[in-house]
Amino acid sequence: MAKILVLYNQPADAGAFDRYYVRSHVPIAKKLPGLKSFTYAKPASPGGGTGPYYLVAELAFESMAALQRAMESDEGRAAAADVGKFAPEGAVVLICDARPA
Amino acid sequence: MAKILVLYNQPADAGAFDRYYVRSHVPIAKKLPGLKSFTYAKPASPGGGTGPYYLVAELAFESMAALQRAMESDEGRAAAADVGKFAPEGAVVLICDARPA
Repeated sequence: MAKILVLYNQPADAGAFDRYYVRSHVPIAKKLPGLKSFTYAKPASPGGGTGPYYLVAELAFESMAALQRAMESDEGRAAAADVGKFAPEGAVVLICDARPA
Repeated sequence: MAKILVLYNQPADAGAFDRYYVRSHVPIAKKLPGLKSFTYAKPASPGGGTGPYYLVAELAFESMAALQRAMESDEGRAAAADVGKFAPEGAVVLICDARPA
Protein backbone atom coordinates (compact mmCIF):
# COMPACT_ATOMS: atom_id res chain seq x y z
CA MET A 1 0.00 0.00 0.00
CA ALA A 2 1.30 3.44 -0.93
CA LYS A 3 0.83 6.07 1.75
CA ILE A 4 1.50 9.69 2.46
CA LEU A 5 2.18 10.31 6.13
CA VAL A 6 1.96 13.92 7.26
CA LEU A 7 3.40 14.62 10.70
CA TYR A 8 2.37 18.08 11.87
CA ASN A 9 4.59 19.85 14.35
CA GLN A 10 2.99 21.19 17.53
CA PRO A 11 1.03 24.33 16.63
CA ALA A 12 1.17 27.60 18.53
CA ASP A 13 -2.64 27.72 18.52
CA ALA A 14 -4.10 24.24 18.69
CA GLY A 15 -7.69 25.45 18.57
CA ALA A 16 -7.14 27.40 15.36
CA PHE A 17 -5.26 24.44 13.86
CA ASP A 18 -8.10 22.06 14.71
CA ARG A 19 -10.79 24.28 13.28
CA TYR A 20 -8.97 24.88 10.00
CA TYR A 21 -7.88 21.28 9.67
CA VAL A 22 -11.33 19.77 10.04
CA ARG A 23 -13.38 22.42 8.26
CA SER A 24 -11.05 23.46 5.46
CA HIS A 25 -8.06 21.19 4.95
CA VAL A 26 -9.73 17.80 5.18
CA PRO A 27 -12.30 18.67 2.49
CA ILE A 28 -9.49 19.88 0.20
CA ALA A 29 -7.34 16.79 0.79
CA LYS A 30 -10.31 14.46 0.25
CA LYS A 31 -10.44 15.64 -3.35
CA LEU A 32 -7.13 13.95 -4.16
CA PRO A 33 -7.71 11.64 -7.12
CA GLY A 34 -7.27 7.96 -6.28
CA LEU A 35 -7.43 8.47 -2.51
CA LYS A 36 -8.38 5.10 -0.96
CA SER A 37 -8.44 6.04 2.70
CA PHE A 38 -7.67 9.08 4.82
CA THR A 39 -7.31 8.78 8.56
CA TYR A 40 -5.78 10.98 11.20
CA ALA A 41 -4.90 10.90 14.86
CA LYS A 42 -3.48 13.05 17.60
CA PRO A 43 -0.68 10.78 18.67
CA ALA A 44 0.40 10.03 22.20
CA SER A 45 3.87 9.05 23.31
CA PRO A 46 4.29 5.57 24.83
CA GLY A 47 5.05 6.96 28.29
CA GLY A 48 2.20 9.46 28.02
CA GLY A 49 2.73 13.13 27.45
CA THR A 50 3.12 15.22 24.34
CA GLY A 51 5.32 13.96 21.55
CA PRO A 52 6.99 15.96 18.80
CA TYR A 53 3.94 15.85 16.54
CA TYR A 54 0.48 17.26 17.12
CA LEU A 55 -1.41 15.39 14.42
CA VAL A 56 -0.57 12.53 12.09
CA ALA A 57 -2.50 12.08 8.84
CA GLU A 58 -2.31 9.01 6.66
CA LEU A 59 -3.51 9.05 3.06
CA ALA A 60 -3.49 5.72 1.25
CA PHE A 61 -3.47 4.94 -2.47
CA GLU A 62 -3.66 1.79 -4.54
CA SER A 63 -0.07 2.08 -5.76
CA MET A 64 2.93 4.38 -5.78
CA ALA A 65 1.96 5.40 -9.32
CA ALA A 66 -1.49 6.47 -8.11
CA LEU A 67 0.09 8.34 -5.18
CA GLN A 68 2.45 10.21 -7.52
CA ARG A 69 -0.42 11.10 -9.84
CA ALA A 70 -2.37 12.45 -6.88
CA MET A 71 0.53 14.58 -5.66
CA GLU A 72 1.12 16.01 -9.13
CA SER A 73 -2.56 16.74 -9.77
CA ASP A 74 -4.14 20.17 -9.36
CA GLU A 75 -5.87 18.83 -6.25
CA GLY A 76 -2.55 17.60 -4.86
CA ARG A 77 -0.90 20.95 -5.38
CA ALA A 78 -3.87 22.71 -3.78
CA ALA A 79 -3.70 20.43 -0.73
CA ALA A 80 0.05 20.94 -0.34
CA ALA A 81 -0.28 24.71 -0.70
CA ASP A 82 -3.09 24.75 1.87
CA VAL A 83 -0.84 23.30 4.58
CA GLY A 84 1.02 26.60 4.77
CA LYS A 85 -2.21 28.35 5.74
CA PHE A 86 -2.77 26.50 9.01
CA ALA A 87 0.55 24.87 9.87
CA PRO A 88 3.24 27.57 9.82
CA GLU A 89 5.16 25.41 12.30
CA GLY A 90 5.66 22.93 9.48
CA ALA A 91 5.10 19.25 8.89
CA VAL A 92 7.19 16.26 7.93
CA VAL A 93 5.83 14.50 4.85
CA LEU A 94 6.83 10.89 4.26
CA ILE A 95 6.08 9.00 1.06
CA CYS A 96 5.83 5.33 1.97
CA ASP A 97 5.76 2.28 -0.26
CA ALA A 98 4.63 0.11 2.63
CA ARG A 99 4.97 -3.66 2.50
CA PRO A 100 3.98 -6.37 4.95
CA ALA A 101 6.68 -7.18 7.49
CA MET B 1 -7.91 1.63 14.00
CA ALA B 2 -5.28 1.79 16.73
CA LYS B 3 -1.72 1.98 15.48
CA ILE B 4 1.82 2.20 16.70
CA LEU B 5 4.01 4.20 14.32
CA VAL B 6 7.74 3.80 14.81
CA LEU B 7 9.89 6.38 13.01
CA TYR B 8 13.53 5.29 13.03
CA ASN B 9 16.18 7.96 12.76
CA GLN B 10 18.83 7.59 10.06
CA PRO B 11 21.27 4.86 11.20
CA ALA B 12 25.04 5.18 11.09
CA ASP B 13 25.23 1.73 9.45
CA ALA B 14 22.21 1.14 7.23
CA GLY B 15 23.33 -2.35 6.21
CA ALA B 16 23.61 -3.51 9.81
CA PHE B 17 20.27 -1.90 10.63
CA ASP B 18 18.56 -3.65 7.72
CA ARG B 19 19.97 -7.06 8.57
CA TYR B 20 19.00 -6.87 12.22
CA TYR B 21 15.62 -5.36 11.52
CA VAL B 22 14.51 -8.03 9.05
CA ARG B 23 16.13 -11.07 10.63
CA SER B 24 15.75 -10.32 14.33
CA HIS B 25 13.43 -7.43 15.15
CA VAL B 26 10.53 -8.21 12.82
CA PRO B 27 10.14 -11.78 14.18
CA ILE B 28 10.16 -10.42 17.74
CA ALA B 29 7.60 -7.69 16.96
CA LYS B 30 5.35 -10.14 15.11
CA LYS B 31 4.79 -11.95 18.41
CA LEU B 32 2.85 -9.01 19.83
CA PRO B 33 -0.53 -10.31 20.98
CA GLY B 34 -3.45 -8.88 19.01
CA LEU B 35 -1.30 -7.58 16.15
CA LYS B 36 -3.60 -7.19 13.11
CA SER B 37 -1.11 -5.91 10.56
CA PHE B 38 2.53 -4.91 10.45
CA THR B 39 3.94 -3.00 7.52
CA TYR B 40 7.06 -0.96 7.01
CA ALA B 41 8.60 1.33 4.44
CA LYS B 42 11.72 3.31 3.79
CA PRO B 43 10.11 6.70 3.27
CA ALA B 44 11.02 9.24 0.65
CA SER B 45 10.54 12.98 0.90
CA PRO B 46 8.11 14.60 -1.54
CA GLY B 47 10.87 16.43 -3.38
CA GLY B 48 13.04 13.32 -3.41
CA GLY B 49 16.09 12.88 -1.25
CA THR B 50 16.54 11.58 2.27
CA GLY B 51 14.13 12.63 4.96
CA PRO B 52 14.64 12.62 8.71
CA TYR B 53 13.60 9.00 9.11
CA TYR B 54 15.18 5.89 7.68
CA LEU B 55 12.34 3.45 8.21
CA VAL B 56 8.72 3.77 9.27
CA ALA B 57 6.91 0.79 10.80
CA GLU B 58 3.18 0.64 11.37
CA LEU B 59 1.63 -1.91 13.71
CA ALA B 60 -2.16 -2.02 13.79
CA PHE B 61 -4.52 -3.38 16.44
CA GLU B 62 -8.26 -3.81 16.73
CA SER B 63 -8.62 -1.17 19.41
CA MET B 64 -6.64 1.08 21.71
CA ALA B 65 -7.30 -1.41 24.51
CA ALA B 66 -5.73 -4.19 22.43
CA LEU B 67 -2.78 -1.94 21.59
CA GLN B 68 -2.22 -1.13 25.26
CA ARG B 69 -2.39 -4.81 26.19
CA ALA B 70 0.18 -5.58 23.52
CA MET B 71 2.58 -2.88 24.72
CA GLU B 72 2.29 -4.03 28.32
CA SER B 73 2.73 -7.72 27.49
CA ASP B 74 6.02 -9.60 27.86
CA GLU B 75 6.24 -9.62 24.06
CA GLY B 76 5.71 -5.85 23.92
CA ARG B 77 8.43 -5.20 26.46
CA ALA B 78 10.77 -7.52 24.58
CA ALA B 79 10.11 -5.72 21.30
CA ALA B 80 10.66 -2.29 22.87
CA ALA B 81 13.88 -3.42 24.54
CA ASP B 82 15.12 -4.91 21.27
CA VAL B 83 15.00 -1.51 19.52
CA GLY B 84 17.99 -0.37 21.55
CA LYS B 85 20.05 -3.19 20.07
CA PHE B 86 19.88 -2.03 16.46
CA ALA B 87 18.74 1.59 16.59
CA PRO B 88 21.08 3.49 18.93
CA GLU B 89 20.21 6.61 16.92
CA GLY B 90 16.73 6.34 18.39
CA ALA B 91 13.19 6.28 17.11
CA VAL B 92 10.04 8.32 17.58
CA VAL B 93 7.11 6.17 18.69
CA LEU B 94 3.59 7.50 18.13
CA ILE B 95 0.49 5.84 19.56
CA CYS B 96 -2.39 6.68 17.22
CA ASP B 97 -6.11 6.26 17.73
CA ALA B 98 -6.73 6.84 14.03
CA ARG B 99 -10.17 7.77 12.76
CA PRO B 100 -11.48 8.38 9.25
CA ALA B 101 -11.11 11.99 8.11
